[in-house]
Amino acid sequence: MSQLEHLYTVLGQNNVLTGPAMSPYLEDWRGRYTGTALAVVRPGSTQELAQVVRWCNQQAVPIVPQGGNTGLCGGATPDNSGRAIVVSLTRLNQIRSIDTDNDTMVVEAGCILHSVQQQARQAGRLFPLSLAAEGSCTIGGNLATNAGGTQVLRYGNMRDLCLGLEVVTAEGEVLHGLQGLRKDNTGYDLRNLYIGSEGTLGIITAATLKLYPLPKATCTALLALDSIPSAVQVLNIARNGLGAALTGFELIANNCLQAVTHCYPDQRLPFQGESSRLPWFALLELSDSESMEHAREQFEAVIAEALELGVVQDAVIAESLAQSQALWHLRESIPLAEKAYGKSIKHDISIPVSRIAEFVQETNTALQAQFPGVEHIIFGHLGDGNLHYNLAKGSAFSEDELLALQPQVYHIVHGNVHRFAGSISAEHGVGQLKRNLLPLYKDPVQLALMQRIKKALDPNAIMNPGKVLPDTSQ
Amino acid sequence: MSQLEHLYTVLGQNNVLTGPAMSPYLEDWRGRYTGTALAVVRPGSTQELAQVVRWCNQQAVPIVPQGGNTGLCGGATPDNSGRAIVVSLTRLNQIRSIDTDNDTMVVEAGCILHSVQQQARQAGRLFPLSLAAEGSCTIGGNLATNAGGTQVLRYGNMRDLCLGLEVVTAEGEVLHGLQGLRKDNTGYDLRNLYIGSEGTLGIITAATLKLYPLPKATCTALLALDSIPSAVQVLNIARNGLGAALTGFELIANNCLQAVTHCYPDQRLPFQGESSRLPWFALLELSDSESMEHAREQFEAVIAEALELGVVQDAVIAESLAQSQALWHLRESIPLAEKAYGKSIKHDISIPVSRIAEFVQETNTALQAQFPGVEHIIFGHLGDGNLHYNLAKGSAFSEDELLALQPQVYHIVHGNVHRFAGSISAEHGVGQLKRNLLPLYKDPVQLALMQRIKKALDPNAIMNPGKVLPDTSQ
Repeated sequence: MSQLEHLYTVLGQNNVLTGPAMSPYLEDWRGRYTGTALAVVRPGSTQELAQVVRWCNQQAVPIVPQGGNTGLCGGATPDNSGRAIVVSLTRLNQIRSIDTDNDTMVVEAGCILHSVQQQARQAGRLFPLSLAAEGSCTIGGNLATNAGGTQVLRYGNMRDLCLGLEVVTAEGEVLHGLQGLRKDNTGYDLRNLYIGSEGTLGIITAATLKLYPLPKATCTALLALDSIPSAVQVLNIARNGLGAALTGFELIANNCLQAVTHCYPDQRLPFQGESSRLPWFALLELSDSESMEHAREQFEAVIAEALELGVVQDAVIAESLAQSQALWHLRESIPLAEKAYGKSIKHDISIPVSRIAEFVQETNTALQAQFPGVEHIIFGHLGDGNLHYNLAKGSAFSEDELLALQPQVYHIVHGNVHRFAGSISAEHGVGQLKRNLLPLYKDPVQLALMQRIKKALDPNAIMNPGKVLPDTSQ
Repeated sequence: MSQLEHLYTVLGQNNVLTGPAMSPYLEDWRGRYTGTALAVVRPGSTQELAQVVRWCNQQAVPIVPQGGNTGLCGGATPDNSGRAIVVSLTRLNQIRSIDTDNDTMVVEAGCILHSVQQQARQAGRLFPLSLAAEGSCTIGGNLATNAGGTQVLRYGNMRDLCLGLEVVTAEGEVLHGLQGLRKDNTGYDLRNLYIGSEGTLGIITAATLKLYPLPKATCTALLALDSIPSAVQVLNIARNGLGAALTGFELIANNCLQAVTHCYPDQRLPFQGESSRLPWFALLELSDSESMEHAREQFEAVIAEALELGVVQDAVIAESLAQSQALWHLRESIPLAEKAYGKSIKHDISIPVSRIAEFVQETNTALQAQFPGVEHIIFGHLGDGNLHYNLAKGSAFSEDELLALQPQVYHIVHGNVHRFAGSISAEHGVGQLKRNLLPLYKDPVQLALMQRIKKALDPNAIMNPGKVLPDTSQ
């Protein structure tokens, strides 16, 4: 254990975990990835972390940074070599400052997203990033994966919500970039290089985040639709009529909400008869800077227009905050309710909005031709072109049979994504899960430049090995 | 001339300029920078350009990319060695496509900004980038310098308005990234690395731009204020009351508008008496998704609140489009009217909004102490923390005396910018003008990483030498 002596000295014995104490850090939360490690370290400051990284760089010890361990692609789980140090950022959890005149807050990487949202709200501001794991994911992880979520349509993804970073580089130097400027054209954009690099170039220790005014009222509507082209037309009408007040536009296939009401009998679909059997629903959110009355008026005008044009078949506008929440609850329950259909093969994809209808039709057809009877479970953020396009066993397969088909299903779905100029990872990142898919679908010039940047910024290749970049040894 | 044979073959003789035909390309539009070149080439396609770059890379011939040649920092002017090829992108001027369902358009680098705005408008959409040179600057130049302008408060700078790029790399390969996806987390963010790199890493040949709904009405107000802290309070009230509808917030010192009305007697200040003598004005723009009536109502509510709190002394809301334009015309006339005070020493700086008042006070004081009687000419985009903080000779100096003081003035102003966590180049870039200032004010870790990225992406150092990166030979 003498190899760890130095870490004990820097961090104190309590913050260097070995043996069984490491287990929560060695498996991802869905139990898909497990690994081993030399130790798990929990630095208490940027300077302590920099010392750890310098030591790792000298000793050629790989580093796996980890936030709330809620990732979906195995990006924060070490490999099985047992050589790596897992660096948990959770002790770097201070809100360093909030500046309401500059509309910024400086937070450390280990801050939980939900607590950042709360602190902003207490200061009378909105921090808009919102996603399912917000109660346990950390800002550092959100940055490392360029997290998306339900408000991207209006506020953008994590990249758009960050003005600057503090980073410990792969050689243990501290990059200072927390100034909080909305304009700074003094050189290359290093911030956006670290954001989304999943810990393979350095470790983000703190960030300056953008804040927004709190909306005065939020209102939600659920629309029943006959097709995806109709949904795209409604999106157009809503963007045109509501402008930046349109903060959410989710597309949901009928069977997703059927699963929700089946699994959770206390939830119910607000449509009956014909409307409840239409193939698609759209959940719209409007964030108003005036009042709930004004929000409803605005919604009514837009929906009336869409009904008149025949692109919406039926519509419900929430009458209260409670009803709004109930509609969102339907949407948010899908990932859990989906399990009623058994384990599924998941895809986190994006397509230009104008081509989504065609993509879904062709991909559904191709999958049914090859695997008749599989169940399509499709929902997502239509406003961003981002679909969670999942496949369950349906009537024709067992769960095991379906899961064995994953490579063939990937091949069909990702092949079509590529053909429709889309992305095989819209918001969850690459991690271990998709790194060896990149050479099939990513521009080879970009891939080659990524390798060069990796080499330039992490010359000893210690940062999160086996993640993002394809395995070139194969 | 045999050195140029290959270029003649690739581009045709008409598109390889030498001798006097080169002159318009060898001097920047303000006449501050001049250079010489081996030739000016005008490729007609991305593939032609790629061939030129491959040849230059093999021959170690430096390349200076140039768009509309409207830059303010000498970034597109070659040096005096006569070794470089100037690559003019103006023949790459096609709008390749407009997709209103996806709210994107694909344009080539040589498209004039104004024509892009017009094409978007004809398709019923807004492309929001707006700046003084829009009649002649190109999208490629806007991207290379990450241009800002008057709408950044709402829509962000060029980086925020671009979803993807096509680039000819420094080795003449073509990077394909025009998909137009709002979410794509499949690796490092190369797009933002090329944006703002001022042609030092590769040449942007086309881009996918974001489009927005056209506002239904735009309304403008001019406010008279007693101090910058009052202006910051008004900004807060306006952001809170108007949300995303607040699309402009310009701060203007009294003497700027005095200069305008003095130079252009057909323009007049809409205030009289006491109000016309207040030290600061703020120009606010509201873009409404409903109607002009609604826009005015919204403005009235916000301004009433500010008047009640005593942070606004007087206010004029435009009654018509013509009045709105007249108010903007006052603002836009400042750079020309400024010449009434003689040539000035200019600074394009940004500071966190919360610290601008303090910065201006301390910097004004320091400059008056050292150079009593100089004239401060201060205006800019307060909502973005971006000031054009200029200095004219005033009563105490001649023009030549003032200009001779530029190094000392820079030292005081940029020193304070740095002390207040600001940037010495907010929106104009670095070019030749500021590259050797960077080591004084930029985080050394970031500068070192910039050098590594330059080496990784342009190994033969042919791309726009002498720009952005500090001269390390000194």
